[in-house]
Amino acid sequence: MDMILNTIQKRWNEENTEDFSSLSAIFLNCTLKKSPEISNTEGLMRMSQTIMEANGISTQMIRLVDHQIAHGVQPDMTKHGWEVDEWPSIQEKIMAADILVLGTPIWLGDKSSVAAQAIERLYANSAILNNQGQYAYYGKVGGCVVTGNEDGIKHCAMNILYSLQHLGYSIPPQADAGWIGEAGPGPSYLNKEEGGLQNDFTTRNTTFMTWNLMHLAQLLQTGFPSHGNQRSDWDKSDHNAPNPEYR
Amino acid sequence: MDMILNTIQKRWNEENTEDFSSLSAIFLNCTLKKSPEISNTEGLMRMSQTIMEANGISTQMIRLVDHQIAHGVQPDMTKHGWEVDEWPSIQEKIMAADILVLGTPIWLGDKSSVAAQAIERLYANSAILNNQGQYAYYGKVGGCVVTGNEDGIKHCAMNILYSLQHLGYSIPPQADAGWIGEAGPGPSYLNKEEGGLQNDFTTRNTTFMTWNLMHLAQLLQTGFPSHGNQRSDWDKSDHNAPNPEYR
Amino acid sequence: MDMILNTIQKRWNEENTEDFSSLSAIFLNCTLKKSPEISNTEGLMRMSQTIMEANGISTQMIRLVDHQIAHGVQPDMTKHGWEVDEWPSIQEKIMAADILVLGTPIWLGDKSSVAAQAIERLYANSAILNNQGQYAYYGKVGGCVVTGNEDGIKHCAMNILYSLQHLGYSIPPQADAGWIGEAGPGPSYLNKEEGGLQNDFTTRNTTFMTWNLMHLAQLLQTGFPSHGNQRSDWDKSDHNAPNPEYR
Amino acid sequence: MDMILNTIQKRWNEENTEDFSSLSAIFLNCTLKKSPEISNTEGLMRMSQTIMEANGISTQMIRLVDHQIAHGVQPDMTKHGWEVDEWPSIQEKIMAADILVLGTPIWLGDKSSVAAQAIERLYANSAILNNQGQYAYYGKVGGCVVTGNEDGIKHCAMNILYSLQHLGYSIPPQADAGWIGEAGPGPSYLNKEEGGLQNDFTTRNTTFMTWNLMHLAQLLQTGFPSHGNQRSDWDKSDHNAPNPEYR
Repeated sequence: MDMILNTIQKRWNEENTEDFSSLSAIFLNCTLKKSPEISNTEGLMRMSQTIMEANGISTQMIRLVDHQIAHGVQPDMTKHGWEVDEWPSIQEKIMAADILVLGTPIWLGDKSSVAAQAIERLYANSAILNNQGQYAYYGKVGGCVVTGNEDGIKHCAMNILYSLQHLGYSIPPQADAGWIGEAGPGPSYLNKEEGGLQNDFTTRNTTFMTWNLMHLAQLLQTGFPSHGNQRSDWDKSDHNAPNPEYR
Repeated sequence: MDMILNTIQKRWNEENTEDFSSLSAIFLNCTLKKSPEISNTEGLMRMSQTIMEANGISTQMIRLVDHQIAHGVQPDMTKHGWEVDEWPSIQEKIMAADILVLGTPIWLGDKSSVAAQAIERLYANSAILNNQGQYAYYGKVGGCVVTGNEDGIKHCAMNILYSLQHLGYSIPPQADAGWIGEAGPGPSYLNKEEGGLQNDFTTRNTTFMTWNLMHLAQLLQTGFPSHGNQRSDWDKSDHNAPNPEYR
Repeated sequence: MDMILNTIQKRWNEENTEDFSSLSAIFLNCTLKKSPEISNTEGLMRMSQTIMEANGISTQMIRLVDHQIAHGVQPDMTKHGWEVDEWPSIQEKIMAADILVLGTPIWLGDKSSVAAQAIERLYANSAILNNQGQYAYYGKVGGCVVTGNEDGIKHCAMNILYSLQHLGYSIPPQADAGWIGEAGPGPSYLNKEEGGLQNDFTTRNTTFMTWNLMHLAQLLQTGFPSHGNQRSDWDKSDHNAPNPEYR
Repeated sequence: MDMILNTIQKRWNEENTEDFSSLSAIFLNCTLKKSPEISNTEGLMRMSQTIMEANGISTQMIRLVDHQIAHGVQPDMTKHGWEVDEWPSIQEKIMAADILVLGTPIWLGDKSSVAAQAIERLYANSAILNNQGQYAYYGKVGGCVVTGNEDGIKHCAMNILYSLQHLGYSIPPQADAGWIGEAGPGPSYLNKEEGGLQNDFTTRNTTFMTWNLMHLAQLLQTGFPSHGNQRSDWDKSDHNAPNPEYR
């Protein structure tokens, strides 16, 4: 599935003067539905992906539920009692990309268990340092896309964006986008008549998120400035305690 | 109260080669305690403030509970039935600063009602656009500090950082820092023997957060790149809907 | 404002065979709007209140923002530096009621600052024990109502219901009800054409919540069973540690 | 692993005059660690289980990660493209039990992906009605246990307890218990010297939770009162809208 952009989305792509062609992005779709079932979350992620591609960014979308991913908080769970674990090769792709967009459906107001697993596995690799001595996710930027039929975009987004920044990702302005319908069961994002495709608010937020991810990734292309945040330097120093000085 | 930094914090200040002197920061302390009662949240915020000051950034700390702030989601509530509202002058200071650090204590696992009010009032000003047509908070960076005696740093931080990025703030890596003790009631951050001053994890996170805020504010000093995120341009364009193209 | 119930709501009131007439309920409306401005949250709360009244329960609705409530976590903040604090008389009403329904609007995906303040003040009274040595909120039941125009019912409800049960309230099944519209700005609950009055899901959830609150309050009318949960007994006992016994 | 209770826990068991012997409980351990690795979450759950067993309740503990559970929101995912799905037999045990205690470790401040999956699968069965026409979880009671080494008990508990009550479980007072250490990495619950076994707050909360679950399950032994909450009756009625009556 591709997404045919609307007039202003296309115009902004044409008017862009930045060269984003050295950037790459990975889209992790955390739907519970295996391929080839239609994923509404993928539908909305495709809009962001299409904008990035139009601006020269190389992208890849991965539907995690199609892979056998182990539970656990070690980089490779086959070394910890699991027979199969396809996460390590996915982690490699994440580490190679400048931009990460995590997409999730909403179930009972929360992100999917697949999204939870993705965050656990990202976390499992958080002790790795880059050659500046910073956490290895430094210099990357992250955003999220959330779809459901009734409630919970912000709840999911606050958790996902929090986790990404805690790991070392930078978060540009308005890095979350999503669609839900009115309270109660109802249509899904890709439903032609009543879904979210007509929702200008969702389309705008997705567009802004995408451009903001591209801009910040561009600014951080040579890495996040490395002073005052080097774990390696901190760890080899004396750790005396700061002291309040009451005046 | 000042904070006497530890050895590595001082060394990093000395070794800094960036000129941050054109930046400014505002620290909003959302404690429930009026001055001059000691605020543990202020204690930890002071550490961040001291690092910024040592690097030439002009800072200001405001304890919101010392001010009469109206409830509501309009910029100035005196125009909506409230006799007093000291928020507008605080908002001016926030708009003048490049960096915002919001500090909150934890009550029943959540941020304080004062922090909730601060976010509502920031939100009340979110429709304002800058002269690029972007939301007015674009180009600013935000972080948060959370203290309590038992549980809830991450819960508070995910909500606060989410709100800031949703309004237009950029969030650098690891922009949250905090201290809590073991589960159950116990000492507070500034308690000399059992509090958080000896906690190397908290000190490190606060230091990293501070430097990351300074670095990202420096990178965004001329504003967040303005293309693909201009509300003014979006609003005057046709709003036809994007369309999925199934292949 | 009263609420004219729908056909089944009226029929269920008529068919009720339980005598709830010794129960009382308090509705705390945590809107940010002062009276007499119309509160959509009050609109939905009125539906629950109308059902309770029809079943003989004495009820009271309090709009907190009409009162001067101090910040803080002590029962009476006039003893801690505040000139005015109208909370203590509200607390008395809460302690006299069997049922508490807390209603909040959604701002930036979260409950209002007034709701946060209400929870802080309820918490401030949580050390009080009843004459069985249990926390004083034991035996009461709680629910919540949430309204907004775009997103966040469940996020607000999980926080509010958590706080209530943590303080000692019992939570019956499906004790949350709310209304939001589709993602993005839009109509409010009481809007005649596009608001939530036509939303059968919201009406049903509000009805079920109300009956479940009445039923559980009735079951707990003589208090929550008092054995194994008496703080007074725990505190005067030896506190040796449990020990795992590996077999 | 059994848990040797402390003095007051034992005394309360001895002094109990209620006959709980017709009740049953299921403990779902949502650790990420496969058997026979030691699960700290199981450690704390064992304390609750030991108290229930001592009071005549039949219990069972299931470590979900030892089972092959499919992703999805249908009762049996083998009918939806998954080769294996061990959830249906677990669901049967949950439906047969009066009490459900869900235990989870904390990762990045949130419940585990296994806990998220358990909630999704419980939700997948939520459309089933009992012979009163109520949702099938009505009449059951739920609680949760959370362990980690740094932060997040309340965040996990509010999500889990919310989900349980939303499905139809009743939540007694103080139905959450947990242990974390001071901010930052550190010992785990079962660590002999520095872990949570010595933490009187955690032991007390676990004890109170357990008794409150037993008491409320006993009160609801014949089901949750069935009037005003019957989905079957609602669905066959006219659905006209309630109307505000402004006076």
